Amino acid sequence: MAEFDLIAMIRARATMRGGVLLGIGDDAALLHVPAGHELVVTADTLNAGVHFPEDTAPADIGWKALAANLSDLASMGARPAWCTLSLSLPQADAGWLEGFLDGFLELAAMHGIALVGGDTTRGPLSIAVTAMGLVETGAALRRDRARIGDDIWVTGTLGDAAAALVLAGHMPAIEGVAPPEDARIAAALRMRLERPTPRVEAGRALLGLAHACVDVSDGLLADLGHVCERSGVGADIELAALPASTALRQAFGDGAGRIALQAGGGDDYELCFTAPPVVREAVAMVLEQAGVECSRIGRVVTGDGVRALAADGSRWQTPPGGYVHFG
Amino acid sequence: MAEFDLIAMIRARATMRGGVLLGIGDDAALLHVPAGHELVVTADTLNAGVHFPEDTAPADIGWKALAANLSDLASMGARPAWCTLSLSLPQADAGWLEGFLDGFLELAAMHGIALVGGDTTRGPLSIAVTAMGLVETGAALRRDRARIGDDIWVTGTLGDAAAALVLAGHMPAIEGVAPPEDARIAAALRMRLERPTPRVEAGRALLGLAHACVDVSDGLLADLGHVCERSGVGADIELAALPASTALRQAFGDGAGRIALQAGGGDDYELCFTAPPVVREAVAMVLEQAGVECSRIGRVVTGDGVRALAADGSRWQTPPGGYVHFG
Repeated sequence: MAEFDLIAMIRARATMRGGVLLGIGDDAALLHVPAGHELVVTADTLNAGVHFPEDTAPADIGWKALAANLSDLASMGARPAWCTLSLSLPQADAGWLEGFLDGFLELAAMHGIALVGGDTTRGPLSIAVTAMGLVETGAALRRDRARIGDDIWVTGTLGDAAAALVLAGHMPAIEGVAPPEDARIAAALRMRLERPTPRVEAGRALLGLAHACVDVSDGLLADLGHVCERSGVGADIELAALPASTALRQAFGDGAGRIALQAGGGDDYELCFTAPPVVREAVAMVLEQAGVECSRIGRVVTGDGVRALAADGSRWQTPPGGYVHFG
Repeated sequence: MAEFDLIAMIRARATMRGGVLLGIGDDAALLHVPAGHELVVTADTLNAGVHFPEDTAPADIGWKALAANLSDLASMGARPAWCTLSLSLPQADAGWLEGFLDGFLELAAMHGIALVGGDTTRGPLSIAVTAMGLVETGAALRRDRARIGDDIWVTGTLGDAAAALVLAGHMPAIEGVAPPEDARIAAALRMRLERPTPRVEAGRALLGLAHACVDVSDGLLADLGHVCERSGVGADIELAALPASTALRQAFGDGAGRIALQAGGGDDYELCFTAPPVVREAVAMVLEQAGVECSRIGRVVTGDGVRALAADGSRWQTPPGGYVHFG
């Protein structure tokens, strides 16, 4: 099977959408950006053994590679439009590619994003996606717009993906915590790791309400730290307010280990955003309409950096860092 | 050195250009596409040991990674605008990254393309670039527009890059051809392999004149074959008309071995295009003004596929295939 055959397989399954004047099959794609919109572009790569365990199913890899990019579009409040896929494969394996496309294109269809180009090359397994979205001119959510006094919010729940990595032995075990006896709990956590839900509808709903927004891919404290740095502010987070899934509570209880997963674990792909208290009810309402849970977890303050506060108001002594790919 | 430090290094050196509302440093870039233009998007990946020899200098890798993408924009007649860079590195090596950026950003500055996002990850050396360009609405050059009777043209010269791979022992030696004694000849050929010139100005000049266009990255016969397939036509190529550099003639003479490099070798990044005979003089003139040599090498005919004809009119018996990354 040659490279051109792989591309033909991909082309045969890629679906179109509005704005694609020329898709896969030429030297480049031709796309139409409608008036009154800005183009939003992000690139995220997944490498085998670094971003996902080697034994991950191809369909899950495909889903996650696109989900990580859609999550970045979501955090800008953008509507997904088009993407490119650069796929490096150790060998031309049609079965693997079919599985990969199952996951990738299932998520693409859910969000109406068209695969318009890319390439396949020989090399260690690596998936580089560039996603393009559209947002109304001047409306994008950014990291540098947090204001003193803003509430800090997070969608969904935190820590499930990191918990799945702990249970699979890919992250250190937590002292005093035994693996759950009920296999369904581990399966639920693993689902969050392998099939994350990019919060695209939530990002769209927050346009005009949120001041700053970031997606939680490297861990809440690390990602919120970027917002603080870019906005020139500090953040106080109440650890007790961090939302936990039922599965996470069942597997890890209510101790410091569970909270560390929520504050420091990456790969959750929830949105963390700031908004003024005056729109508190509006935020809750639009996110409920979007079918996404949300929690207020802290406040934007003067200063710099993120302070993680325990229930008694004392400062968390050893805030866990985010995922660091190098070092 | 952590991933964030690498990104900071890249961000500090990336230059801006018009249309960048938000560059590196948020979850995504925000870009403005001017009215009356289409967005042109291409993605091309280079992997160590597959697309370049392992001992290639970092600056040459950086140059070539961008050049391959700019060449795709050139073949559409697009003006380069923005790009993303997804860089997988075995370790966080600041010296390597500085060298890589020297080459990448030197070429970027020459073409006014802004690096607006991407990521750095740990993994085997791989460089995935997505390049975005702009072309006037409806004006793009495409593969599927060749017409019966068109002249077939190629810019510059062919075969130098493949010759450099032969001399370096990365492609099979050619029977009866000895390596050149003059080291400057080998150096000239190697320069074409490592620092290819994307024909951006030529692509722009050909808008309104050329019917179909493709860049020669996989080899002339293979790439022209794509044009034939997409346009539903055939092509007759005169092998004696294929343009050769002085260095290539000096190193490989005038035999079948040299012609095979020109017809089948990839990595030249010249443009192959078709245009009606009525604009023959106009084509020669605009390309001369763009400072790019050009040669007429054949004709678009009825049928399908590419026929490579020797000087006596006989058909080339074993047309060499293009580069095939898999198989």
